[in-house]
Amino acid sequence: MNLLGKREPEVYGSQTLDDIIRTLRTSFIEIEIEHFQSNIEGELIDSIQTAVGIYHGVVLNAGGYTHTSVAIRDAISGSEVPVIEVHMSNIAAREEFRHNSLISGVCLGTIAGFGAHSYTLAVEALKAYLKKVR
Amino acid sequence: MNLLGKREPEVYGSQTLDDIIRTLRTSFIEIEIEHFQSNIEGELIDSIQTAVGIYHGVVLNAGGYTHTSVAIRDAISGSEVPVIEVHMSNIAAREEFRHNSLISGVCLGTIAGFGAHSYTLAVEALKAYLKKVR
Amino acid sequence: MNLLGKREPEVYGSQTLDDIIRTLRTSFIEIEIEHFQSNIEGELIDSIQTAVGIYHGVVLNAGGYTHTSVAIRDAISGSEVPVIEVHMSNIAAREEFRHNSLISGVCLGTIAGFGAHSYTLAVEALKAYLKKVR
Amino acid sequence: MNLLGKREPEVYGSQTLDDIIRTLRTSFIEIEIEHFQSNIEGELIDSIQTAVGIYHGVVLNAGGYTHTSVAIRDAISGSEVPVIEVHMSNIAAREEFRHNSLISGVCLGTIAGFGAHSYTLAVEALKAYLKKVR
Amino acid sequence: MNLLGKREPEVYGSQTLDDIIRTLRTSFIEIEIEHFQSNIEGELIDSIQTAVGIYHGVVLNAGGYTHTSVAIRDAISGSEVPVIEVHMSNIAAREEFRHNSLISGVCLGTIAGFGAHSYTLAVEALKAYLKKVR
Amino acid sequence: MNLLGKREPEVYGSQTLDDIIRTLRTSFIEIEIEHFQSNIEGELIDSIQTAVGIYHGVVLNAGGYTHTSVAIRDAISGSEVPVIEVHMSNIAAREEFRHNSLISGVCLGTIAGFGAHSYTLAVEALKAYLKKVR
Amino acid sequence: MNLLGKREPEVYGSQTLDDIIRTLRTSFIEIEIEHFQSNIEGELIDSIQTAVGIYHGVVLNAGGYTHTSVAIRDAISGSEVPVIEVHMSNIAAREEFRHNSLISGVCLGTIAGFGAHSYTLAVEALKAYLKKVR
Amino acid sequence: MNLLGKREPEVYGSQTLDDIIRTLRTSFIEIEIEHFQSNIEGELIDSIQTAVGIYHGVVLNAGGYTHTSVAIRDAISGSEVPVIEVHMSNIAAREEFRHNSLISGVCLGTIAGFGAHSYTLAVEALKAYLKKVR
Amino acid sequence: MNLLGKREPEVYGSQTLDDIIRTLRTSFIEIEIEHFQSNIEGELIDSIQTAVGIYHGVVLNAGGYTHTSVAIRDAISGSEVPVIEVHMSNIAAREEFRHNSLISGVCLGTIAGFGAHSYTLAVEALKAYLKKVR
Amino acid sequence: MNLLGKREPEVYGSQTLDDIIRTLRTSFIEIEIEHFQSNIEGELIDSIQTAVGIYHGVVLNAGGYTHTSVAIRDAISGSEVPVIEVHMSNIAAREEFRHNSLISGVCLGTIAGFGAHSYTLAVEALKAYLKKVR
Amino acid sequence: MNLLGKREPEVYGSQTLDDIIRTLRTSFIEIEIEHFQSNIEGELIDSIQTAVGIYHGVVLNAGGYTHTSVAIRDAISGSEVPVIEVHMSNIAAREEFRHNSLISGVCLGTIAGFGAHSYTLAVEALKAYLKKVR
Amino acid sequence: MNLLGKREPEVYGSQTLDDIIRTLRTSFIEIEIEHFQSNIEGELIDSIQTAVGIYHGVVLNAGGYTHTSVAIRDAISGSEVPVIEVHMSNIAAREEFRHNSLISGVCLGTIAGFGAHSYTLAVEALKAYLKKVR
Repeated sequence: MNLLGKREPEVYGSQTLDDIIRTLRTSFIEIEIEHFQSNIEGELIDSIQTAVGIYHGVVLNAGGYTHTSVAIRDAISGSEVPVIEVHMSNIAAREEFRHNSLISGVCLGTIAGFGAHSYTLAVEALKAYLKKVR
Repeated sequence: MNLLGKREPEVYGSQTLDDIIRTLRTSFIEIEIEHFQSNIEGELIDSIQTAVGIYHGVVLNAGGYTHTSVAIRDAISGSEVPVIEVHMSNIAAREEFRHNSLISGVCLGTIAGFGAHSYTLAVEALKAYLKKVR
Repeated sequence: MNLLGKREPEVYGSQTLDDIIRTLRTSFIEIEIEHFQSNIEGELIDSIQTAVGIYHGVVLNAGGYTHTSVAIRDAISGSEVPVIEVHMSNIAAREEFRHNSLISGVCLGTIAGFGAHSYTLAVEALKAYLKKVR
Repeated sequence: MNLLGKREPEVYGSQTLDDIIRTLRTSFIEIEIEHFQSNIEGELIDSIQTAVGIYHGVVLNAGGYTHTSVAIRDAISGSEVPVIEVHMSNIAAREEFRHNSLISGVCLGTIAGFGAHSYTLAVEALKAYLKKVR
Repeated sequence: MNLLGKREPEVYGSQTLDDIIRTLRTSFIEIEIEHFQSNIEGELIDSIQTAVGIYHGVVLNAGGYTHTSVAIRDAISGSEVPVIEVHMSNIAAREEFRHNSLISGVCLGTIAGFGAHSYTLAVEALKAYLKKVR
Repeated sequence: MNLLGKREPEVYGSQTLDDIIRTLRTSFIEIEIEHFQSNIEGELIDSIQTAVGIYHGVVLNAGGYTHTSVAIRDAISGSEVPVIEVHMSNIAAREEFRHNSLISGVCLGTIAGFGAHSYTLAVEALKAYLKKVR
Repeated sequence: MNLLGKREPEVYGSQTLDDIIRTLRTSFIEIEIEHFQSNIEGELIDSIQTAVGIYHGVVLNAGGYTHTSVAIRDAISGSEVPVIEVHMSNIAAREEFRHNSLISGVCLGTIAGFGAHSYTLAVEALKAYLKKVR
Repeated sequence: MNLLGKREPEVYGSQTLDDIIRTLRTSFIEIEIEHFQSNIEGELIDSIQTAVGIYHGVVLNAGGYTHTSVAIRDAISGSEVPVIEVHMSNIAAREEFRHNSLISGVCLGTIAGFGAHSYTLAVEALKAYLKKVR
Repeated sequence: MNLLGKREPEVYGSQTLDDIIRTLRTSFIEIEIEHFQSNIEGELIDSIQTAVGIYHGVVLNAGGYTHTSVAIRDAISGSEVPVIEVHMSNIAAREEFRHNSLISGVCLGTIAGFGAHSYTLAVEALKAYLKKVR
Repeated sequence: MNLLGKREPEVYGSQTLDDIIRTLRTSFIEIEIEHFQSNIEGELIDSIQTAVGIYHGVVLNAGGYTHTSVAIRDAISGSEVPVIEVHMSNIAAREEFRHNSLISGVCLGTIAGFGAHSYTLAVEALKAYLKKVR
Repeated sequence: MNLLGKREPEVYGSQTLDDIIRTLRTSFIEIEIEHFQSNIEGELIDSIQTAVGIYHGVVLNAGGYTHTSVAIRDAISGSEVPVIEVHMSNIAAREEFRHNSLISGVCLGTIAGFGAHSYTLAVEALKAYLKKVR
Repeated sequence: MNLLGKREPEVYGSQTLDDIIRTLRTSFIEIEIEHFQSNIEGELIDSIQTAVGIYHGVVLNAGGYTHTSVAIRDAISGSEVPVIEVHMSNIAAREEFRHNSLISGVCLGTIAGFGAHSYTLAVEALKAYLKKVR
């Protein structure tokens, strides 16, 4: 399993992305979890495109690109790997321009608002989904 | 725990709301789960308003009211009980008028797109949240 | 046949909903016509959902809910019974916010502007439709 | 009675405009039915403007002009002949730009979604209307 | 006089709807004041429709339905009883979607922002209005 | 107390601004009422800015400026004097561009639609407000 | 001089297009006035395109096409003949969709709201313009 | 006759407002022409309000206020004097925000785009109008 | 092959539509090229509708109708002949209202911005397309 | 140099407009600085129009008029004096309706968000600009 | 000649970008064709900026960035090399957010909808353009 | 101090980014100025994120990303370093889509329109700001 992500700015301090990964690996010892973090939109796209055949699913926190990137949307819908959209914060409770996600429509589903625990729920959702379809 | 809900139309057949409740009670035997289903907006509101002091949290599938009900939004934001928004379908992949949720902004978080499993994830999210804040 | 309806406010006086039903029963003696009237959105929804297996079709005047109710739309599109949208007034000749119907798109068709006669035309349209598809 | 019309593209094959006219003449032998078909907006306008004093009413399928023609709207509202808007398809279930009709507001009423039978209903509606007002 | 109402969420604690009614009855002993409270949109509509012939006027706090209910608007404009719109909070100082009231345009007038005192002002306004028109 | 105002055009004839002031002074003999009327936006602003320290409150009818003046809004929100927005007509029942008030959000509250009596209600509201906060 | 025109519907009765032409010819005996009237958008376009080299200017009443025709706009802007837009009614006082003219921006100027006299003013304006530029 | 005006910025040089007034007085020696020019919105309003009973009509060039002033609109619609809107430039050929006039809808008519000659046409239009209605 | 077209206004001078046709016939001697030019929307529609069974494809320059004609769109989508949209100018570099084409979505593809050469490219595209699908 | 200005409401207390002027005169002893402050839109316009030939440049804080005044825009664009737009607060971080400036597009440039220091930067920018262009 | 590109997701399988390049080199042996592919917006920008002086023209398929990238638009309009926009799919027949291209307006022209053949047409268009301008 | 930047396309020729840096270093010898230039959105983000603890402030010219990048906005608002937005051109005088900046709201302030001198003003503003807050 591949874990893409852009750290949400409000996470600084209490819990780093590394902490989250460690928690996930502890919670899901039966799953091999890879993670990739980049601020560069195109590298997130590369990462999604190369996931096919290597990973069974992707948990994606696209950060600010969530609301502006048709290119990431195309990468997801062109990919054959199931992608779950995840946000630590409740984006619907923030600025107007964050209420619209260009990515949700081509993902399997969305989990938002549960802090670092959003990732755990997403991996669980993916696990359940894969059990059902395979 | 109180489980409100409006059955999503696409669920007919394979799995009824009763099935979902049964699965939840089996998965979370340590939690007392109540459920309430109504097509009447005002009864959903009553149900949210009376949850305070009785339940520790609410998992809410507001169905079509998700996109039109300021009144349900007010009930949630006026209530002191944490509410999690849940959808079985990926509403972002459906019609334009379903992309906007009036409710998300006042809920703890949102889980959408994982079928009946959305409910399980929501209860789990609520459980984790309550453990953290109490 | 089930006849749902919310009386349009401009009908007071000359002709009540009962008059309309009586006219319909006289005009279509070969059809069994039931009618249901409620101001409660959720009861209209209940009524549509329970029509399956009991009635062959529904003639629906959703009144003010026509323009705001995603929930009624969902009830119609989730139902397997053909629904015809009917309005006594010509809603397109009234206020701007009445020009958009959330319901039309999931109904079989729409008849608007012919006063009480709109109902007669709707029953006739339903009758012709049922003859063709069965 | 004058029957204007632009064939809707999806009618090809099963039933031509001539078939529809023939059906109407058979169904309403007591009414003299004329029909006029043109792709030219201005000829539809001419036809509406010249209907006064000759015909008692007009059944109008303005096709694609329904959504764009202020000029046809002006012809209808300037005419003293009652006009009924008719569509074979349910335009509300099609593309966004078909949901708005510039013509509905100045017609007597609208009938849409019942295939060729929409015309029969429209003639019937017109007949009932004329009986009432004369 | 009939007093409809949906408690505004920010009123909890200091003053209940019962307190408000008691204050009104004390302030206006010459007026018979009835009140009705419901979370169900259709029951508010029923209440407005049945006010004719029984009450001389209605003071209406439609809560969240203020911004979404064409049906309540229709009930008011179809009723022959004067209705005054009242809000305890200043809705113009809150979220964008609360700035538009579907109901104001068919009410006699609007009073908003004076807390529980808004009701007193509304009854006074109604009293003055009735003295003038009768 | 300072009474700002732009006469609403529909008041001509029956009752002048002077009549209104006279009525207010008779109704509220315990309050010292000043009034100021100008068609010049900037003079209304000056008047609001200089009210601090002189008057306990302002009743403001900003007429057509209600819908266009960010500058008056700034004067109100920058002032430490409570301001009540008042309209003689029900602005929500008039043209679309009158439905939006730039001023409401920074006033204490709004009273609209009760003709000259709107002013009486506003002074009363202000009186009650001042009693509470002082 | 070429006078194009679509009769505005509200002119029926008191004054026909022929009357207007006769008045113009009487008022401007020094000018040779041609007129052309058609309901067909393309014929108006033909008429504008062929005006070059024959007429010194065009007075154009495009009726309902004013608000919808990019093609007439292109004909005007592609033509080397000055065109004056004329309306008998005050289009700004009518429906919202009549407030926007696609044609004004490429005409010399606009005259609207003076009934049949609008044409006289337009010819006068054209005459003054031609005197200045030649 | 009263001539209000805000000089349009592009007129500098060739022709001043004084020149225009002189031309008008020469062209219409039978009419008494007064003129008033101010950059202050409220003074234009005062001027319109005081025209009643003194002048038979007003020719108004509201400059930039054309597009933003509800207050001037109210002054015109509240006044019993006919007002003609005039612009020297073709405002429809300029920036987007100049395409909408808040004033046109309450004026008798509009004349735009003919430079200083717009004023002459406006006075002529007013003269013809007054001859007709008196 | 049928070549419909409305000359774009900026082509005057250097190259007429006849020149373009001549160039096309020289470049594609193996193809029989017919052309049709009209300013009348309905005649373009007739021409598209009658192309079926006679021509293998249509190259269409709909000029100003590109942005306003639902009727031409319907003719194309109802036709079984492949249609290529062509523009001599780069419409995206022109006015805002030219950026939206109602026709593109139902054409095979679009070629815009290459002057008269756009036609050559379109015929080539059509030729390649027909070779592939037949 | 002329310094126009409307005090921003948030400046009260710590620093008055007089303090700012004093600071500017101290910082730029080589420049003659005049200042003008008014709440009346038209007086700001007068001030801009009369600056030509007297001042080399204008630093303008248009306060709330920034977002609504086409008339001030016209005064600036019609003036031959360079104007710099200045705001003490960061208007982009405030309410939505403050994000759009009608004035920026015709000014030399904009400086916003640096408190009283915004004025110093603006004078400096003007000084540098004048050195370059003269 | 430089060939930039982002593979469109629907191309997988039948034809790779390499195939397309090979076809182009075979079809245009007289032209030296370079190609560059990247998912990173900024690298596409670098590539456009460095094309000046090296290549005679650029054929650009900006994929999802077509609809969101002001930065690529700036790179094109700042470059002195002619750029042709190309799309394999007919973007106008896809989702709403793909109908607007930020790039078209600064390109020479656009070719969309002809699959891999779009590239061939683009190179041909560029070749013809260069022959004309040099 | 860190100086991020994307060269604005119109700067080519007269003055390079290096020239600007050199001027800044000469003008502010007491400040250590670093600069970073990239076309890659993510690298600008990296650069902002890594500025904390190293630089006292950032002067940012985000070029085309100004109008589209929620991700850069997040980087700024998540950073503890003050950021000043700078533009060489007056973006408000350019295309509509450049009038909205996603970044302004989270920056300290904005300076736009003064060419290369914008950078000097920005450094000065930052210097003054840092003196005040430390």
